[in-house]
Amino acid sequence: MPSDDDRPRARRWLGTGRMEALSDGVFAFAATLLVLDIAIHPPGTALEQVLNAWPSYLAYVVSFLTIGAGWLAHTALTDRLARSDALLLRINLLLLLVVAFLPFPTKLVAESLHHVGSERVFVTMYGVTLLTIRLLGFALDAYARHEQLYSPPEEGEEQADEPREFVPVLGGYAIAILIGLVVPELAVAIYFAVALYMILFRELRPHPRRRQAA
Amino acid sequence: MPSDDDRPRARRWLGTGRMEALSDGVFAFAATLLVLDIAIHPPGTALEQVLNAWPSYLAYVVSFLTIGAGWLAHTALTDRLARSDALLLRINLLLLLVVAFLPFPTKLVAESLHHVGSERVFVTMYGVTLLTIRLLGFALDAYARHEQLYSPPEEGEEQADEPREFVPVLGGYAIAILIGLVVPELAVAIYFAVALYMILFRELRPHPRRRQAA
Amino acid sequence: MPSDDDRPRARRWLGTGRMEALSDGVFAFAATLLVLDIAIHPPGTALEQVLNAWPSYLAYVVSFLTIGAGWLAHTALTDRLARSDALLLRINLLLLLVVAFLPFPTKLVAESLHHVGSERVFVTMYGVTLLTIRLLGFALDAYARHEQLYSPPEEGEEQADEPREFVPVLGGYAIAILIGLVVPELAVAIYFAVALYMILFRELRPHPRRRQAA
Amino acid sequence: MPSDDDRPRARRWLGTGRMEALSDGVFAFAATLLVLDIAIHPPGTALEQVLNAWPSYLAYVVSFLTIGAGWLAHTALTDRLARSDALLLRINLLLLLVVAFLPFPTKLVAESLHHVGSERVFVTMYGVTLLTIRLLGFALDAYARHEQLYSPPEEGEEQADEPREFVPVLGGYAIAILIGLVVPELAVAIYFAVALYMILFRELRPHPRRRQAA
Repeated sequence: MPSDDDRPRARRWLGTGRMEALSDGVFAFAATLLVLDIAIHPPGTALEQVLNAWPSYLAYVVSFLTIGAGWLAHTALTDRLARSDALLLRINLLLLLVVAFLPFPTKLVAESLHHVGSERVFVTMYGVTLLTIRLLGFALDAYARHEQLYSPPEEGEEQADEPREFVPVLGGYAIAILIGLVVPELAVAIYFAVALYMILFRELRPHPRRRQAA
Repeated sequence: MPSDDDRPRARRWLGTGRMEALSDGVFAFAATLLVLDIAIHPPGTALEQVLNAWPSYLAYVVSFLTIGAGWLAHTALTDRLARSDALLLRINLLLLLVVAFLPFPTKLVAESLHHVGSERVFVTMYGVTLLTIRLLGFALDAYARHEQLYSPPEEGEEQADEPREFVPVLGGYAIAILIGLVVPELAVAIYFAVALYMILFRELRPHPRRRQAA
Repeated sequence: MPSDDDRPRARRWLGTGRMEALSDGVFAFAATLLVLDIAIHPPGTALEQVLNAWPSYLAYVVSFLTIGAGWLAHTALTDRLARSDALLLRINLLLLLVVAFLPFPTKLVAESLHHVGSERVFVTMYGVTLLTIRLLGFALDAYARHEQLYSPPEEGEEQADEPREFVPVLGGYAIAILIGLVVPELAVAIYFAVALYMILFRELRPHPRRRQAA
Repeated sequence: MPSDDDRPRARRWLGTGRMEALSDGVFAFAATLLVLDIAIHPPGTALEQVLNAWPSYLAYVVSFLTIGAGWLAHTALTDRLARSDALLLRINLLLLLVVAFLPFPTKLVAESLHHVGSERVFVTMYGVTLLTIRLLGFALDAYARHEQLYSPPEEGEEQADEPREFVPVLGGYAIAILIGLVVPELAVAIYFAVALYMILFRELRPHPRRRQAA
């Protein structure tokens, strides 16, 4: 069936199209649900209440950008997939489980960030969730590479760019989790920086096949 | 119109593409809404509150994995569909109605699991909901098989793998619902095990046609 | 560009693919958000609380099925579309605005159905919302027919089946809204019946072109 | 690979398909979440409570239409895209971040509009959010035009229609934000008018390529 070769590769195998659909759904909904974690509370004038809610906004932005970075990485991964398999779908479900969980620790951080005492616990829980999301993203990539689920690289091209992020991102998270035990606000700032790093310095390359076709 | 035969089969008939889109939306959204059922409550230190919320986390994971298993089964089913028909769409709507309902009994279980008295009622309601989701999944498959909506199997391949799960899954649910009347925590543990079983031991096979093409 | 003719028609024009994607999203999310309207309240044992919440379940089912019926009608409509235009997209946005609003009157009905006094107002508001959803569905169809956006019918086939529902559905809603001013519970039962009627007696026919191709 | 040229252009490049999927998800979900901001409060009869909630309905409609207008503009933009690139995806993520934030200021406006004092702050915050959504939409378009990511225009056709809206929309927002500092209700009415303007007077043209093919 040679005409088959002309169609986008990711569509041809077991559940890849719907794996993308479910993943896009969960990433989009989890990111949008984050807004429910934002709230203002008395006392104070309206302006004071809005300004005092800054930990809500910060937690919203950090979580949204982390989910956005996870989605960018996920997109880059599925774009390179030549096929999927049953275990990949399961690792993906596990990733989505943690992504969908993120609004909960985000709410804890949003509500606690200027309350001394509780914030250390909540910020640590938050950091561990962010780290887990990233680790499962790396696991997805490592599995796909190990099982040769990716399209073969073109000549003069290296296989995959995920590992380049591995050390700075995981290092950043590890340092931030430790710092969060002492200075929780600084840890959240580092999570912000890591999310920005992942979004801004990820090299998004078109699928080799598609690039050539253009 | 012979060129038509080269395109993915599921796309060619009445509403299959949008049946998948609506289903992916409901599965993804119901799974993501589950996070709203997680909450911590005083009294206790922040750490105690986070740890005391374990029934929330357990109920979240069990419901998420059950939805994930339902989605895997749904994907496997629609991947094999050669066409859809009007009654299939309606059975599917009924399935989605129950999937979208799941966050409610999940919340009841999450809030009650260490409160003696109410938990038996809530865990039973939860189990009946999980069982109904699975039964409607089987009904969808049985109907598709009966009406020959699936693509014909290739030589040397059996038609459908759904029934293999039938006895262990339904048996597990039936036993858990009975146990839940006495020891609700154990019932939830069994629901966890059944969800894991459905996710881990489901054989996900590529569409015969697509597999050959690779 | 003759090869163009072989592709699914709905994809070829202004925003039809994404009109479907946005619509599927709103239908799916509005249906799933309905679950947040279900709640149990003291007093009573756990079992009594669960049983006393029957208006919640009823309102959930009626709203879910109404959204499901709206989605079936919407799917049948877009499946027959040969093209879209700018005004159709706007009528569709208006329809989605009312569909997305439905969880609010559903919550009012769910919370009030056994409280004498407030329920008449809420049930009337609910009925008007359901009626508006259906009217906008008919408007979408009437506009598409008037502007000849549908694929031409094959020989021996009538053009569109929407109007057949027109009288029973609108009659049912009108009667139920009037009855709801006196006996709100009966009105909700009629809304249930109308939703079932729309789901069960809608004739879903495959796109003529696709049917022929099979 | 000449057969490649026959396929829809937007699908051929880096993550455009999934950029659309994620965007449709966030637009649809943010629009649907707005309904959670609607609530009625005592005192008063049921009818009075429903009528007194008019700021909720107004805020719902204005936000829904603004998201709808943003989605129409987004659709028109991606329909013309010949390809995507890494920075476009990031501007898009920023746009989605603000769209997903909109339910929060909407809730503030819905709850405050007849409470003298707090409403000025909330309406200003609301207006700035609406303005930011539109500015990021213009930025997306300006970037795509600057980087020549759009399909080349056909003969006798101008390149892009976004800037035509630029002055009236941004002017309307700027005036409304200033007016909102004095008469908040009037500002919300202007936001309503701007949303209607964006929806009704946007010229939605089919993709040149597709139009020709029809």
